[in-house]
Amino acid sequence: MGFIIGIVDTMFARYDMAKDVINVFEEYTGVIKYFRYTVPGIKDLPVGCKKLFIEKKCDLILALGMPGPVEYDKVSAKTASDGLMMVQVEFGKHILEVFVHEDEGIGSSLDGSIDKDRLSNVMSRRAESHARNAVNLLVDPKKLEDKAGTGVRQGYPDAGSIKW
Amino acid sequence: MGFIIGIVDTMFARYDMAKDVINVFEEYTGVIKYFRYTVPGIKDLPVGCKKLFIEKKCDLILALGMPGPVEYDKVSAKTASDGLMMVQVEFGKHILEVFVHEDEGIGSSLDGSIDKDRLSNVMSRRAESHARNAVNLLVDPKKLEDKAGTGVRQGYPDAGSIKW
Amino acid sequence: MGFIIGIVDTMFARYDMAKDVINVFEEYTGVIKYFRYTVPGIKDLPVGCKKLFIEKKCDLILALGMPGPVEYDKVSAKTASDGLMMVQVEFGKHILEVFVHEDEGIGSSLDGSIDKDRLSNVMSRRAESHARNAVNLLVDPKKLEDKAGTGVRQGYPDAGSIKW
Amino acid sequence: MGFIIGIVDTMFARYDMAKDVINVFEEYTGVIKYFRYTVPGIKDLPVGCKKLFIEKKCDLILALGMPGPVEYDKVSAKTASDGLMMVQVEFGKHILEVFVHEDEGIGSSLDGSIDKDRLSNVMSRRAESHARNAVNLLVDPKKLEDKAGTGVRQGYPDAGSIKW
Amino acid sequence: MGFIIGIVDTMFARYDMAKDVINVFEEYTGVIKYFRYTVPGIKDLPVGCKKLFIEKKCDLILALGMPGPVEYDKVSAKTASDGLMMVQVEFGKHILEVFVHEDEGIGSSLDGSIDKDRLSNVMSRRAESHARNAVNLLVDPKKLEDKAGTGVRQGYPDAGSIKW
Repeated sequence: MGFIIGIVDTMFARYDMAKDVINVFEEYTGVIKYFRYTVPGIKDLPVGCKKLFIEKKCDLILALGMPGPVEYDKVSAKTASDGLMMVQVEFGKHILEVFVHEDEGIGSSLDGSIDKDRLSNVMSRRAESHARNAVNLLVDPKKLEDKAGTGVRQGYPDAGSIKW
Repeated sequence: MGFIIGIVDTMFARYDMAKDVINVFEEYTGVIKYFRYTVPGIKDLPVGCKKLFIEKKCDLILALGMPGPVEYDKVSAKTASDGLMMVQVEFGKHILEVFVHEDEGIGSSLDGSIDKDRLSNVMSRRAESHARNAVNLLVDPKKLEDKAGTGVRQGYPDAGSIKW
Repeated sequence: MGFIIGIVDTMFARYDMAKDVINVFEEYTGVIKYFRYTVPGIKDLPVGCKKLFIEKKCDLILALGMPGPVEYDKVSAKTASDGLMMVQVEFGKHILEVFVHEDEGIGSSLDGSIDKDRLSNVMSRRAESHARNAVNLLVDPKKLEDKAGTGVRQGYPDAGSIKW
Repeated sequence: MGFIIGIVDTMFARYDMAKDVINVFEEYTGVIKYFRYTVPGIKDLPVGCKKLFIEKKCDLILALGMPGPVEYDKVSAKTASDGLMMVQVEFGKHILEVFVHEDEGIGSSLDGSIDKDRLSNVMSRRAESHARNAVNLLVDPKKLEDKAGTGVRQGYPDAGSIKW
Repeated sequence: MGFIIGIVDTMFARYDMAKDVINVFEEYTGVIKYFRYTVPGIKDLPVGCKKLFIEKKCDLILALGMPGPVEYDKVSAKTASDGLMMVQVEFGKHILEVFVHEDEGIGSSLDGSIDKDRLSNVMSRRAESHARNAVNLLVDPKKLEDKAGTGVRQGYPDAGSIKW
């Protein structure tokens, strides 16, 4: 028996994270079937997710977004997160929020500019890691319990456990 | 078969964005039918949207507003956004939030005053762009997927992709 | 045919805005019928509104409040606004939030003290203006559309349009 | 005919406000019947209130809490307030939030320490005043309307009206 | 008759609090039965709780998490708390939020680094204390009422009462 995963992403983001997610799902042909839906920006993700839960009967959704760097973008990200919370709580099904803030790409330059390679690497790795989390939550949730409290991170190296 | 789009706007805003939205819709006669409803301020938009979803059976709504420049206005904008999220999640239909903050019009003058031309240009272009997003979401959603992750902006030049 | 408007106000506020609202409604005898309910503070307004929507079958409610000047008061005002949003979205009927922050009364004195005349004038005029908005929304909503995007304010002079 | 009032309080608070509330209710034997339920901290109050609304059929609830003094405590207080709003709006019955922030007890000492007498006095008086508000809301709501807009405070002297 | 308690925890946390919780529950064999479910991060806890309420018919849930130290982590913690509030209010059953912020582990070193022993001690003790609160709420709620207003803390020494 297989599972259906939704991918909702935005035109606003500056890197196509869905591509990395789909690469993971293609390792699971016959197990994971996916549907994709693209919206303008992060505040449009919650309704996008609700549509996929209803129309495609998804078991879990990945919501991909890249909030911009200024204060107003942070407020928009909070509104988007609140909406994703409303929708996932309504359905009792996980929506993994795969957000990379554009300022995570600020590099070591003196002017605080965005390092495009750094940013796209974080986006690619976070998307891939959460795609694997999604598969594990549906197919083999014990894999998560085995790593409980061990400081797992997505897009960066794991922080690790502080005490065994 | 056609679609019904709602336009909810405010007396508070200092530029009539609905006019630009309607100009776009008039390119789609026979495809897009629209209804307009004006409320006092941005916190009245969510109920305005709910009324149009129920009374006019809209498929999608554009919520047009111009939050003022001071801290209290930012808080009001968050409350309005939260309300728009509640309504769109309830109906599972998109409400595109077309907000232009009045301080996006701060020009290059030394005193931080509002550049009225700059502000009205941002408002006009953002309204038009989101009107086109609305049409695409209903008529041809693949057009959005083709631009996923490419840094599309409304009211400003596109930011572009950071990696192809 | 007439309409029923609710007025919910607080003991906390330092000026009786309901009086100004009622003065407006008395110009519309036979058209507008009103009910008033007083609660302790602004966080009690949302349930007050829900009670009037249910028990008095109001078509619209004015929620009158005066948030205090310190940080904690601002947080309370946000909670109150969120509650008013929940209730108006639940019923799909407008609650016009008529809040005047006590620090809108800070005058030109050097010590930042409250100018009582200034504050009571803002409260009186905002209450009256929103009472007229309430009547127009129910009786003649086209009056609002005619002023869409023209920078209408309540309690202060209109900001005006930035472009015709 | 009588009314049922719930009291929900916490182990976290450093003063037993419920005692002052109960003293007031004992003046109204035969009119007010009360139930008390204690939870660990303020974020547990909303479910405590819901339980009393359902299991004890309360007409109104007093939620007693003392948020701590640091930033994280303020955030917890907001979450608790939001939860109390959800519950009271769901039932359409008042929950009077009787919160005293621990830093309301900061005295005139130079080191910003808590003046325990000052803090316990504020907590005692606020609890008593809101217990009387609770009784009035149920038994004689006109008493609140008579004081509308007069600057009533709980735990401190009334601020008074700014204009008659 | 026994009770069912859920434990939802994360891979993100850097210490396995569930272990300490389970140690407490094992003192109550035959009284407390528990189920555990691990999710990626704190924003996934609310749906995890909803799943356990529905699938395992839990009477109460412990939500274990360790928000990170930077601003964005604080925002995520607020979103997680809001989601936990939604779920517990929906079911009318307590979810005890057992969060330890990573920066509670900042020690006395000059560079503001995390003291791993300090942090793991706080996490262990808070988890154990809330596990006992959970048992008391279900088995013997009078134990909480006996400590109402006495300044009980979890993970740190009790603050104590300010007035008897």
